[in-house]
Amino acid sequence: MTKTDVQALLNPGERIDDLLTMDMKIIQSKDTFSFSLDAVLLARWCKVPKRGRVVDLCTGNGIIPLLLSTRSSASIVGVEIQPKIADMAARNVKLNQLQHRLDVVCDDLRSYVLHAGHGTFDMVTVNPPYFGVKTGEHRVNRSIAAARHETAGTLVDIVLACAKLVKSGGKVALVHRPSRLADIITTLRAVKLEPKRMQLVHPRMQQEANMVLIEAMKDAKAELRVLPPLIVHQSDGAYTPEVHNILYGHSLDLISE
Amino acid sequence: MTKTDVQALLNPGERIDDLLTMDMKIIQSKDTFSFSLDAVLLARWCKVPKRGRVVDLCTGNGIIPLLLSTRSSASIVGVEIQPKIADMAARNVKLNQLQHRLDVVCDDLRSYVLHAGHGTFDMVTVNPPYFGVKTGEHRVNRSIAAARHETAGTLVDIVLACAKLVKSGGKVALVHRPSRLADIITTLRAVKLEPKRMQLVHPRMQQEANMVLIEAMKDAKAELRVLPPLIVHQSDGAYTPEVHNILYGHSLDLISE
Repeated sequence: MTKTDVQALLNPGERIDDLLTMDMKIIQSKDTFSFSLDAVLLARWCKVPKRGRVVDLCTGNGIIPLLLSTRSSASIVGVEIQPKIADMAARNVKLNQLQHRLDVVCDDLRSYVLHAGHGTFDMVTVNPPYFGVKTGEHRVNRSIAAARHETAGTLVDIVLACAKLVKSGGKVALVHRPSRLADIITTLRAVKLEPKRMQLVHPRMQQEANMVLIEAMKDAKAELRVLPPLIVHQSDGAYTPEVHNILYGHSLDLISE
Repeated sequence: MTKTDVQALLNPGERIDDLLTMDMKIIQSKDTFSFSLDAVLLARWCKVPKRGRVVDLCTGNGIIPLLLSTRSSASIVGVEIQPKIADMAARNVKLNQLQHRLDVVCDDLRSYVLHAGHGTFDMVTVNPPYFGVKTGEHRVNRSIAAARHETAGTLVDIVLACAKLVKSGGKVALVHRPSRLADIITTLRAVKLEPKRMQLVHPRMQQEANMVLIEAMKDAKAELRVLPPLIVHQSDGAYTPEVHNILYGHSLDLISE
């Protein structure tokens, strides 16, 4: 893709950042949505099937489908409710020339479920809005508010969509705040998504967890593995070797935060 | 207490071990029940009220009430279903001359709830049997089997007893296996015991969790704190400073394992 072709994909206020993997790029905008460490960890952490169909809900600018595409040959759909952000995700697919197996759908996930049909995916990933609609932390900017808050669907709506989209024996991987863990586990259980693998993420060794990665399996038996804790920063502030490896893999690119 | 008095409290096959706190002793027997790291961690970890009433279910030889008595002036009841073990717990109370505020009741916890009344405790602690009755790990020795398996009450029975015994706003602290975490959280939720504080215990830094400490509050709002991970052993096999401190506190006594 020529530099002119790339520039043609950009809207005003947007920039192109290096993705963490060797030769990928991503369009971002501070006015609407930039990807977070949470999404990157989820995309690197989940056990993605080598083939089949994967759907990423609340996909934002498509960061998770883009990263998953480097780990799997599955066809991947990203679902985003906000037209402006969904358009950015679609342009990110083009920018990385992945149109043959990445698809972006602009839809409410509740109506997407009706459209896509039940049990049609091998895996669902989701980095949902973290804050309940009543927490009062809404930002002025509506795009960012919708990405951070449950304005477009509660945790129950999202988990229910996951349960409907995934086939029996398929996996649902999500990242969320540990403060919601009891809500998440009871909600997963209520729709036969059995939590099988969990990892707590702590900013530093002596600090409380501020992120939780959970993988559930549809219709599986009850038995949860809690992986070793993932510590993000060393005492000197640098990334720990584990997180450095997750973020950069074999790449020497710099992460843009 | 004279040495003769102490010897009079011992049955055949029993021994007296130093407890981890300065001047406490405990009667144990390898044929029936010896306390575990799990019980000690729970007793040191939970936020015990300074006064009021505390009950420890599945109390075994009374290790948790004994340790709690060093941290609180509350009156403490230990409930144990097996007469032989309950008798050992009662003799442990005498051995440590704590009859004025530690009481041992030999009862099925389901009938104990009827006897004690609802909402009559400020805190409930429990280190329940870890294995389901169908897991096939039953030992030949019935006493040990009952301590390790849910022969005398399932997780649901135990959590339901906790919910009935504790008052609104009171706390329930339990230790269990992480593999049962989804069962535990959904069961706590079902009886309005809201998980508020959780800590995962890992044998070593790079290993999966093999123990989980959870504190729930009756009728509380949903918000869980996940504490920093508790790592038991350093890479050289010695206890980490955190666990050493939990086990020994200000005492120089040796732990008997």
